[in-house]
Amino acid sequence: MTKKILPGHGSGGKLMNEMIDTIIRKRFGADNVQLDDSAVLSMAGVRFAFTTDTFTITPFFFPGGDIGTLAVNGTVNDLSVMGAKPLFISCALVLEEGFDFADLEKILDSMKSEADKADVRIVTGDTKVVPNGAADKIFINTSGIGIIERSIQRREIKPGDRIIVSGTIGDHGMAVMAIRNNLSFSGGLTSDCAHLNHMIRAVIERFPESIRFMRDPTRGGVASVLNEIVKGKKISVKLNEDALPVRDEVKGVCDILGIDPLYAANEGKVVIITRPDDAEDIVNILKSTAEGREAAVIGEINEEFPGKAYIETAVGGRRILPLLTEEQLPRIC
Amino acid sequence: MTKKILPGHGSGGKLMNEMIDTIIRKRFGADNVQLDDSAVLSMAGVRFAFTTDTFTITPFFFPGGDIGTLAVNGTVNDLSVMGAKPLFISCALVLEEGFDFADLEKILDSMKSEADKADVRIVTGDTKVVPNGAADKIFINTSGIGIIERSIQRREIKPGDRIIVSGTIGDHGMAVMAIRNNLSFSGGLTSDCAHLNHMIRAVIERFPESIRFMRDPTRGGVASVLNEIVKGKKISVKLNEDALPVRDEVKGVCDILGIDPLYAANEGKVVIITRPDDAEDIVNILKSTAEGREAAVIGEINEEFPGKAYIETAVGGRRILPLLTEEQLPRIC
Repeated sequence: MTKKILPGHGSGGKLMNEMIDTIIRKRFGADNVQLDDSAVLSMAGVRFAFTTDTFTITPFFFPGGDIGTLAVNGTVNDLSVMGAKPLFISCALVLEEGFDFADLEKILDSMKSEADKADVRIVTGDTKVVPNGAADKIFINTSGIGIIERSIQRREIKPGDRIIVSGTIGDHGMAVMAIRNNLSFSGGLTSDCAHLNHMIRAVIERFPESIRFMRDPTRGGVASVLNEIVKGKKISVKLNEDALPVRDEVKGVCDILGIDPLYAANEGKVVIITRPDDAEDIVNILKSTAEGREAAVIGEINEEFPGKAYIETAVGGRRILPLLTEEQLPRIC
Repeated sequence: MTKKILPGHGSGGKLMNEMIDTIIRKRFGADNVQLDDSAVLSMAGVRFAFTTDTFTITPFFFPGGDIGTLAVNGTVNDLSVMGAKPLFISCALVLEEGFDFADLEKILDSMKSEADKADVRIVTGDTKVVPNGAADKIFINTSGIGIIERSIQRREIKPGDRIIVSGTIGDHGMAVMAIRNNLSFSGGLTSDCAHLNHMIRAVIERFPESIRFMRDPTRGGVASVLNEIVKGKKISVKLNEDALPVRDEVKGVCDILGIDPLYAANEGKVVIITRPDDAEDIVNILKSTAEGREAAVIGEINEEFPGKAYIETAVGGRRILPLLTEEQLPRIC
């Protein structure tokens, strides 16, 4: 039987990682190339990050944002977690014949508004129209360029390092799942979609040497990011269940749909791994910003289960957080 | 009635230009921003071009290339016509559930092979999978960055300037239309898909001061590019019918389908507007390269029909080449 693309190949989980490793990185990859993230590059002596992301979310309007908000903030955040200052963004639209002009204008308004707030410019674009049925309404690709003025090399992560998340987890994923499933009681549940460049910059400027790693936990959530970090290494990730910031509304929807908020997408959060001594200070900087008010240390690096991420409950129970194979929340971004 | 997206909004013609002017440029645009092309930008004193393009061509394999070949070369060429040296490219895939892995691998092989030939690196990527029916098999976005070492500002185009095309026109458009329409006699008709950066560089290095304008005539063909140049200006474009390089096979398919090759897409050609005195020398440089063997001066700028492009036949007849409103060759790139 011929091998076919499965939903899980786009999930941010195991299947996708395998595909990237075996058929994409094998071809394009070099040592200094991060194909699943921003690439760090140099041109005439200037260091910069370059990233790309296509947004296919459904529905394209959701509580807390729309596909345009997401397209700008997603790319701004991908650059920011590399230590880059986002400067320029592209906007490539794929539109299905029959798409409403008024909806398109609202989406473009969102993009402009978010770009202004994040201090980035949308400088180049492309528009393709495909016949009815050849795409689902609207897809947006944004690529971005950010200058690296202060390098935060990805340093070795060590036992004892602390894991910080900049706020409540799973908000975006569960806000979208709630409206898809018509869960009317979930009023007030909104996406956390936001640009994090200003908040991240505040941390980098104060603690340029402390940060070992940063990533925005979008598709696949916090658990997928943490799994990637320890995969194939001698270290493991321990999370403290009690420390995880999760909104009650998110918990409610997660329970109903049988989803772990650790695997639900975030669009305005960052996971930071830091030297232990500065962890509390970094949390305090995060808390002083609007986007980071509920930041917390949620766990640490140890060597108990090499290559694995696990969660410890209040009563001492332990549960491994596997790298998911299957698509849990399709088209969440 | 609510206004809806029509196929023509993606055609490279009048409807698309109107949409870009009224709803996109109005929001994002600034004086120094070319939203339909590469943007010319500066970062820490380094000048560069940044461009984006999504490829939705059907069928995704065609004589002379595939969607991967197109995705790399299209972006390389968009950078090259701005006078930039293409360096880095991104690769963002939207895959429909059920897409063949073997086809994907062939397409990625094409991308790698073209990138190597064009001396550009594919450095970052993204993969999204959408359910069956939510996209038509595969869409690829490539964005690109190229350094501008030698600026060719877009200078004022003046009466007397010559119009050069680097080879036969309409090859890509008609090769794709022929296989879509099962025109079996059209054997030998292949896309001209190619990277033009090396050829363009040869011209820029010899004649940095002579070039007024360069553009790769993709969607909408040579006629659409020339219309854009004179739109709203006091100058007009005159083409000599006898001078147009058109393959016999392309003429044949155009006749059957009722398409003017001047409106058919090219994927390996450049239109150059140059000072009259250097036109023949530039053609000779083009002819010395593999991609430019059939380059020719095809017309000139005058003031006879301000704002219009027209063609003059051997017997002196004249025909206006309108800016098309409708989509003539949907999903050609």
